[in-house]
Amino acid sequence: MIQPAPRPEFTARYFVESSVASEKIAQVIAGEQSSGTFLSLPGETEGLKERSRARVVRIDPLAPALQPSLPSAYVQRHAHGGVFHRAEIEIAFPVANVGANLSSLLATVAGNLFELGEVTGLRLLDLDLTADYAARFAGPAFGIAGTRRLAGVHGRPLIGTIVKPSIGLTPEETADLVDELCAAGIDFIKDDELIADPPYAPFDARLRAVMPVLQRHADRLGRMPMYAINISGSVDEMLRRHDAVLAAGGSCVMVSVNWVGFAAAEHLRRHAQLPIHGHRNGWGAFTRHPELGFSFQAYQKLWRLAGVDHLHVNGIRSKFWEPDASVIESARACLSSWAGVQPLMPVFSSGQWAGVAPDLYAALGGVDLMHLAGGGIIGHPDGVEAGMASMREGWEAAVAGIGLAAYAESHPALRRALVHFGNL
Amino acid sequence: MIQPAPRPEFTARYFVESSVASEKIAQVIAGEQSSGTFLSLPGETEGLKERSRARVVRIDPLAPALQPSLPSAYVQRHAHGGVFHRAEIEIAFPVANVGANLSSLLATVAGNLFELGEVTGLRLLDLDLTADYAARFAGPAFGIAGTRRLAGVHGRPLIGTIVKPSIGLTPEETADLVDELCAAGIDFIKDDELIADPPYAPFDARLRAVMPVLQRHADRLGRMPMYAINISGSVDEMLRRHDAVLAAGGSCVMVSVNWVGFAAAEHLRRHAQLPIHGHRNGWGAFTRHPELGFSFQAYQKLWRLAGVDHLHVNGIRSKFWEPDASVIESARACLSSWAGVQPLMPVFSSGQWAGVAPDLYAALGGVDLMHLAGGGIIGHPDGVEAGMASMREGWEAAVAGIGLAAYAESHPALRRALVHFGNL
Repeated sequence: MIQPAPRPEFTARYFVESSVASEKIAQVIAGEQSSGTFLSLPGETEGLKERSRARVVRIDPLAPALQPSLPSAYVQRHAHGGVFHRAEIEIAFPVANVGANLSSLLATVAGNLFELGEVTGLRLLDLDLTADYAARFAGPAFGIAGTRRLAGVHGRPLIGTIVKPSIGLTPEETADLVDELCAAGIDFIKDDELIADPPYAPFDARLRAVMPVLQRHADRLGRMPMYAINISGSVDEMLRRHDAVLAAGGSCVMVSVNWVGFAAAEHLRRHAQLPIHGHRNGWGAFTRHPELGFSFQAYQKLWRLAGVDHLHVNGIRSKFWEPDASVIESARACLSSWAGVQPLMPVFSSGQWAGVAPDLYAALGGVDLMHLAGGGIIGHPDGVEAGMASMREGWEAAVAGIGLAAYAESHPALRRALVHFGNL
Repeated sequence: MIQPAPRPEFTARYFVESSVASEKIAQVIAGEQSSGTFLSLPGETEGLKERSRARVVRIDPLAPALQPSLPSAYVQRHAHGGVFHRAEIEIAFPVANVGANLSSLLATVAGNLFELGEVTGLRLLDLDLTADYAARFAGPAFGIAGTRRLAGVHGRPLIGTIVKPSIGLTPEETADLVDELCAAGIDFIKDDELIADPPYAPFDARLRAVMPVLQRHADRLGRMPMYAINISGSVDEMLRRHDAVLAAGGSCVMVSVNWVGFAAAEHLRRHAQLPIHGHRNGWGAFTRHPELGFSFQAYQKLWRLAGVDHLHVNGIRSKFWEPDASVIESARACLSSWAGVQPLMPVFSSGQWAGVAPDLYAALGGVDLMHLAGGGIIGHPDGVEAGMASMREGWEAAVAGIGLAAYAESHPALRRALVHFGNL
């Protein structure tokens, strides 16, 4: 007798908290997300179950809770002993249930299971695909190497900033700011996520104003400063805007990944000839409660499959809620080898300045990142050029293993930054 | 002197909890989401602020909390008195900041604000656009009236079910089940969200198998039973599949709205000649924590703008976490008049059977809904036809104001349902 080949699977790992035992809720989730419902069905044969049913791979119990993390009217309706069982569970799904379809993958690993009545906490912690399966998705076309090649920046982070004010600048004012930033030697500029195509500064007018400035500096520098212009909009607009950026000699496009969505982002990726800068605004809603939503580890894998090239990870010591350790973990996740899919370039932003370079370098052990500073560059007391110099010098010191204060003795821009931003 | 016209605005209402006073956090959010950053910027002129800055309309204080709802390392880093201020706030944004761009609208009302360090709770409660502004988005093309016209069902809910098992049926098995459901007089059938285009039952094969069955029953009934076939996939696949459904005489397409995303859904809507059945799987991740994410009220408005026609709202007394009052409130939100944009048809699903009809009718005061029952139809002890009859009879009784038990005396299908599902 010929043994059937093992069925190809992918796995999802969850934190789960439930009013029923972890073994039971794991089976409920596996059933809900494959071939189960609340009663046995006529068409649900043993053969079908064998082929289609998800299987519980692993249950690692955690200490139970006495209060539910999330409310559930279902739990209140049903007699309940007052203990909420917690575990990390891993579920294996047949690849054949999904195919190469991002929205089906999401519906499977992150669909109705969040709403199950017995569930009082559920978080998608991780996701694993075989390289064969992952290769059927788009994946990043440029990643770190392609981005560096287009930006002409090697051996250090891409140092950049965000066009500020976030919103309200005319195309000409934007071009003037870009000119000043390029004159100061910036590697990377991005639009704020709030601006895309407002009536007072339409996308086309912004592109028309900005590109000659970038071209002029590219001629001078021998490399085009990378400008991630926000093309977020309808599917047709995004493709058309991408083509306009490409035709004008631009080297990057940006989208608000959560709000454009997976299908549109992947569609753009299949069409694009430029790296896609993934802005994750709204991410807080998906992740801020520790017993709900998505971990960044899972999230970055999903966007890797969709094919963005860069992904935001916040900054350390930023104005945002996130602990520095979590920011670092996110960056490491972007940089990690996974399923043969290119790593993403992590983008550090918010509260960044020259002084954080040593900590970032120590944590990441490398320079493959975008380091965006707003005030840390534009707010430097000696001006934008000094701000940019201070960022470069901070990284030089970090990579050389020289203390910032010592390096600053012979580097006045860094010295001023340490005094101004670091209260030294 | 000529007075300038008031600037057109849209508003967002939030629950906010913060380590700083509500007046201050409201200003921080307004600044973060329009023209603010942590330092005053050279280009940020008074004129620009006047034009671009969001404004705090209203702050309604709520009782403060002594513990933060969401963790924030930022709050831990900064000296903090231990009280977390809570309020409902309303912020008005200039329409000119955004334009007719769904992803920019989302980035503005639901972007980085979720991650602000001082924020320990933030939920988008509601959204208001003027009719002029709302008219610039796609909006539903069919809504309730268009759906009824295509389904040929009037004066009662569309009674339907979901193809089960969720996943694993071959195209032929699916067609056999559809045949049985249509023979029983079903109004509406939908795919489970888990199935779209798996290798063992590709979309095209499923459509080819199912459509002749539907056509045969349409010839018999004089109306085409509406089948919401799941076309979720890439942008190109969705358009191609929509066209195939249309060409084959089908009358509805379904997408997993959260995972296809706003841009792709709106793109489909601009192209589509069939109603779009919006499946909200994953919604739990956006809403289950009461101090985070989105209310359904805001969510359904966003998908209304994108142009879906139907939207899921769970069932009452379902297997899901949601309290019945919240389910009803969601359905009312779908049905409400808003900004001149067509209402959505609410879809009740999970745990539904004939016995809940009176409660739904009492709560909604109407029959504009889809009422989907799985076990409640397929699990009826006298078979699918009796299950379908029991659902119709439940609604007849509800609309006529006759008690179910009384109506059941002359309606055996309903009687059996009451005994079997209702323990009467």
